[in-house]
Amino acid sequence: MLKIGLLGAGRIGNVHAKAITSHPRSALVAVSDINTDAAAKLATQYRAEARSSLDIVNDPAIDAVLIATSTDTHSDLIEAATKAGKAVLCEKPVDLSLERARACQIAAGATGKPVMIGFNRRFDPNFAALKAAADRGDIGKMELLSITSFDRAPPPVSYIRVSGGLFRDMMIHDFDMACWIFGGAPRTVTTIGSSLVDPDIGAAGDVDTAAVTLKFADGRIAVIKNSRRACYGYDQRIELLGSEGLLSAGNILENTVTKATKGGVTGAKPEFFFLERYMRAYSIEWNAFVEAITSGSALPVSLDDGVKALAVAEAATRSLATGQIVRLADIL
Amino acid sequence: MLKIGLLGAGRIGNVHAKAITSHPRSALVAVSDINTDAAAKLATQYRAEARSSLDIVNDPAIDAVLIATSTDTHSDLIEAATKAGKAVLCEKPVDLSLERARACQIAAGATGKPVMIGFNRRFDPNFAALKAAADRGDIGKMELLSITSFDRAPPPVSYIRVSGGLFRDMMIHDFDMACWIFGGAPRTVTTIGSSLVDPDIGAAGDVDTAAVTLKFADGRIAVIKNSRRACYGYDQRIELLGSEGLLSAGNILENTVTKATKGGVTGAKPEFFFLERYMRAYSIEWNAFVEAITSGSALPVSLDDGVKALAVAEAATRSLATGQIVRLADIL
Amino acid sequence: MLKIGLLGAGRIGNVHAKAITSHPRSALVAVSDINTDAAAKLATQYRAEARSSLDIVNDPAIDAVLIATSTDTHSDLIEAATKAGKAVLCEKPVDLSLERARACQIAAGATGKPVMIGFNRRFDPNFAALKAAADRGDIGKMELLSITSFDRAPPPVSYIRVSGGLFRDMMIHDFDMACWIFGGAPRTVTTIGSSLVDPDIGAAGDVDTAAVTLKFADGRIAVIKNSRRACYGYDQRIELLGSEGLLSAGNILENTVTKATKGGVTGAKPEFFFLERYMRAYSIEWNAFVEAITSGSALPVSLDDGVKALAVAEAATRSLATGQIVRLADIL
Amino acid sequence: MLKIGLLGAGRIGNVHAKAITSHPRSALVAVSDINTDAAAKLATQYRAEARSSLDIVNDPAIDAVLIATSTDTHSDLIEAATKAGKAVLCEKPVDLSLERARACQIAAGATGKPVMIGFNRRFDPNFAALKAAADRGDIGKMELLSITSFDRAPPPVSYIRVSGGLFRDMMIHDFDMACWIFGGAPRTVTTIGSSLVDPDIGAAGDVDTAAVTLKFADGRIAVIKNSRRACYGYDQRIELLGSEGLLSAGNILENTVTKATKGGVTGAKPEFFFLERYMRAYSIEWNAFVEAITSGSALPVSLDDGVKALAVAEAATRSLATGQIVRLADIL
Repeated sequence: MLKIGLLGAGRIGNVHAKAITSHPRSALVAVSDINTDAAAKLATQYRAEARSSLDIVNDPAIDAVLIATSTDTHSDLIEAATKAGKAVLCEKPVDLSLERARACQIAAGATGKPVMIGFNRRFDPNFAALKAAADRGDIGKMELLSITSFDRAPPPVSYIRVSGGLFRDMMIHDFDMACWIFGGAPRTVTTIGSSLVDPDIGAAGDVDTAAVTLKFADGRIAVIKNSRRACYGYDQRIELLGSEGLLSAGNILENTVTKATKGGVTGAKPEFFFLERYMRAYSIEWNAFVEAITSGSALPVSLDDGVKALAVAEAATRSLATGQIVRLADIL
Repeated sequence: MLKIGLLGAGRIGNVHAKAITSHPRSALVAVSDINTDAAAKLATQYRAEARSSLDIVNDPAIDAVLIATSTDTHSDLIEAATKAGKAVLCEKPVDLSLERARACQIAAGATGKPVMIGFNRRFDPNFAALKAAADRGDIGKMELLSITSFDRAPPPVSYIRVSGGLFRDMMIHDFDMACWIFGGAPRTVTTIGSSLVDPDIGAAGDVDTAAVTLKFADGRIAVIKNSRRACYGYDQRIELLGSEGLLSAGNILENTVTKATKGGVTGAKPEFFFLERYMRAYSIEWNAFVEAITSGSALPVSLDDGVKALAVAEAATRSLATGQIVRLADIL
Repeated sequence: MLKIGLLGAGRIGNVHAKAITSHPRSALVAVSDINTDAAAKLATQYRAEARSSLDIVNDPAIDAVLIATSTDTHSDLIEAATKAGKAVLCEKPVDLSLERARACQIAAGATGKPVMIGFNRRFDPNFAALKAAADRGDIGKMELLSITSFDRAPPPVSYIRVSGGLFRDMMIHDFDMACWIFGGAPRTVTTIGSSLVDPDIGAAGDVDTAAVTLKFADGRIAVIKNSRRACYGYDQRIELLGSEGLLSAGNILENTVTKATKGGVTGAKPEFFFLERYMRAYSIEWNAFVEAITSGSALPVSLDDGVKALAVAEAATRSLATGQIVRLADIL
Repeated sequence: MLKIGLLGAGRIGNVHAKAITSHPRSALVAVSDINTDAAAKLATQYRAEARSSLDIVNDPAIDAVLIATSTDTHSDLIEAATKAGKAVLCEKPVDLSLERARACQIAAGATGKPVMIGFNRRFDPNFAALKAAADRGDIGKMELLSITSFDRAPPPVSYIRVSGGLFRDMMIHDFDMACWIFGGAPRTVTTIGSSLVDPDIGAAGDVDTAAVTLKFADGRIAVIKNSRRACYGYDQRIELLGSEGLLSAGNILENTVTKATKGGVTGAKPEFFFLERYMRAYSIEWNAFVEAITSGSALPVSLDDGVKALAVAEAATRSLATGQIVRLADIL
């Protein structure tokens, strides 16, 4: 039984606590949070101890930590935990600074400890089925990938200000998805973006609606669209055109009921937001982490993947600023 | 915290054990099964005790029992448990004999203890949403209900022989659904059926493919189709035509991925079987039971509902045998 | 070039006039109607002559007639036209009286002239594709057929009174469809029906909502549902369960646009009514008639098929009246 | 009755001949083609005369010409026909040279004669319904437009060489669509493209797979994806995200039949190619032209629209060559 320390008892920490507890081979033993009440409450619910992050990281009885704290602490905690000999599953992104993330990559790499980055969408059964079909050759040679990723509603501008911007905070998931599906990093990145949803987001120097095109080796193309607002639900879809067909992964709807009336045929909306849509993905993600660190096999998402996605986000940010196509080689 | 005894540790017992344990206000304390190894194994997994059914029923420390044993024991256990002062959730059907079920209804009724019958499909979020929309008047006056209910594959003939036949074993779910949606019992029942899937089912005196039409008060009509085999997945759909529209509740698919090739556009199959399709329904059902017995409010499915569905099954069986439309008043 | 006389210049006559004219191997030369203005108008539009039905039937220069007059004239016109040596395409039903239809069948049969009955739905590309797939064995052995056939809105009661009732007027299409798909006539017919849509229809002695079950040789089952009102559009769907799968033919929607908002995802309704839904079918039907009579090959729908469907309608009517399962052998 | 001369008797000329003839207020009187046999054949079929293009253009008895000849003749014929006092419907593009197109725009404009460019997709009932819903405000403020436009299979390289390249030949339809939906021209154009489908297309200096992003006034964004090959059918879809919802217009499928088997649920492919998909659009387009020139109302697609789309194509071509975002103001 793996003994797990959970760093961060917020919304996503709660999701992870449930996954850790439900898994037959992992037990939640300790929880930390800068909000000690939150840590205490979550610890009580799962009969774990509320402790400080440092305490947990340095406790030799704990096998692995799950880092679900605020982004600015990720790199430090990854370094501390790996130095202390722990396996790590850390929420995305590694860091807002590509430089800092690369330093972390080197430091953690030196310990030889496994560090997995929580790109939860790879574990969504729909996206995973699309990827598996593509890898199986179901649509021949992959050519053109489209990712639609719209949030339900924009976060408060206070969050936007510390988020690192749309590309590091939100589209980073899609950068990882594109790199994962095509198996590699893009060569060039082109960005356009606007503040259409909330003028305060624009005033804060960020965009809330954006389209990025990526060109990969051999000319393969990925198109990513993001909006901070889709009032009809969390819109998460992927299409992949290949030489012999098209794969599409659609939204999960709230239910399967339709109503036909004089006004048309109405069905349910997509699931509300990421906690609903990706609830199964979080538990599959945790299972994959447990499998990898107990069997010693390769992690399904590595720290390198986290750095790669961050580099693409950096390139996208730069393309938006300069109005030019940016080569990833100029970033990495 | 409600202390729960689970009678029956088979496939469906396992499903209920998980629901009982996951609920914040119920705890699984005891498990029984005629297969004592199965009871022991399930008890160990959830840190409960393996005991005999009688022991559990008569233990004053236990608040409620969930009966998931074989059908022939349902009536006896309902009577014993209610006499011992327990609330009961019993799997369908109440009994294969309508006479025995009615005796049980009287005996249990005399104790004043709540007895709920496990018509799990009422708790499926899709069917529940359809029912709610119809009750809200979304499609005006209800007129014509269609239920499609096809199993994945036929059970072994040894099971068919003790099952009470298609109408008491399988279509009883649909009879309950029709009575629930229309709010009442049908006046007449008309049946045709055949053995098309497995000739051994026919040789055993049962049918494996059947269509039943029900006529309710005010002329409303329900059509139910059953087949023991839908090789593409468990097919569970409802349509309800009203004066102002049509409501439809469809299948839940294994995933949302489609593949377009020269051969057409292929999507996933419906979920495999009832454990997959109704997994959420079982946990919602358990929650509804806990709510009702702790608040003292009316049960969402009563023992009377169980007897009513059995009476319709009896009428359907008789219509098949006689080739005539059967009046429910001649049965009840 | 086939010279065609069109008997009947009403709504459906207009549809046929267009199909006849558009076909490269048929020319509309004459039109009749009891409303001579209607005949004159249609004749002018297509540069044909307005004449009396008898005149047309007896004109040796005319090769074939299309009968689109009122039902009570069908048998007489079929007999007159075949006696005059013409090929005939006659709208359904052959007659409201099974006896009269059978007399017509004998008289027309004696002439050896081809008579096709206009069961237009067989020529719908969707239903034809379903039938072709089933015949190809795509779903193994056919077992259970379901036909949903709802009209947009009920006709005036004045029409109901002369219509022959729901089964001869409306469900006769579905009887033909079931016989065509399964390849034969049912052995038994069971009917329930109600007047739910318009009480005046009930007062006129007819039903407006009905469910009929048919049992065919080898036990195969067909279920047909009819309603005179589906406010959301003309609802025409077929499902066919087989030992190795399920075929479904759905509605054609008005367009492919969907709108996702806070209230759900809304798409277009099914096409409005039969003229919209079956417009392509009418032209394919005419082409099939031309092909058959010019090549001398078998008609795709024979007069026998028309009589068979009428016999099933007769059985359904009798089952509704008696509350018993009716054997078709007792009708034919 | 408008007397129409058709210049060009190829594949698309045949489509137009049918639309002209079927319209109650237009008659096809003359046909020309450099292949005189083709012209003669088409003329015979519709009882028109085969003549030379110049003859037709200069015949005062002819009211309007439809130009469906090769692209390199469009500008000259528009100029000649308008100078001769005729209304013109000309297939897209106006010209491959933006400079020549603008000269034609000036010359034709000076005559005051109406010139409509055949952007047929605007008349597709699905896209038209999407546009109407957006203009009605159904999804609030428009923000992000996505156009997917994949051909069935690449044309021969010999055609590619004279086509003007993907952006002027194929994506020009999508540029017009984006300008039409958003009501204006984009400010900036960003392009990436590859030759993935056929290396000979790359060798000929063109791309066969491309993604273009357009930024409009007020920051609105359009994303266009093109591929020369979608083996599963002609893929023509539009999505439009607004502040209050999402509109989507999907493909028209070959039929509505689905087949569920162990392998999944398979439905029909999208319609084969543009003649199938846009058959209705061509007849609606012709009707719109007739309406406009007979009523004197504004043309639904003007020559200016044709020049605007060509300018965007020019910008996209330049962006691909330079790897930079191109401002439309630098082109026009």
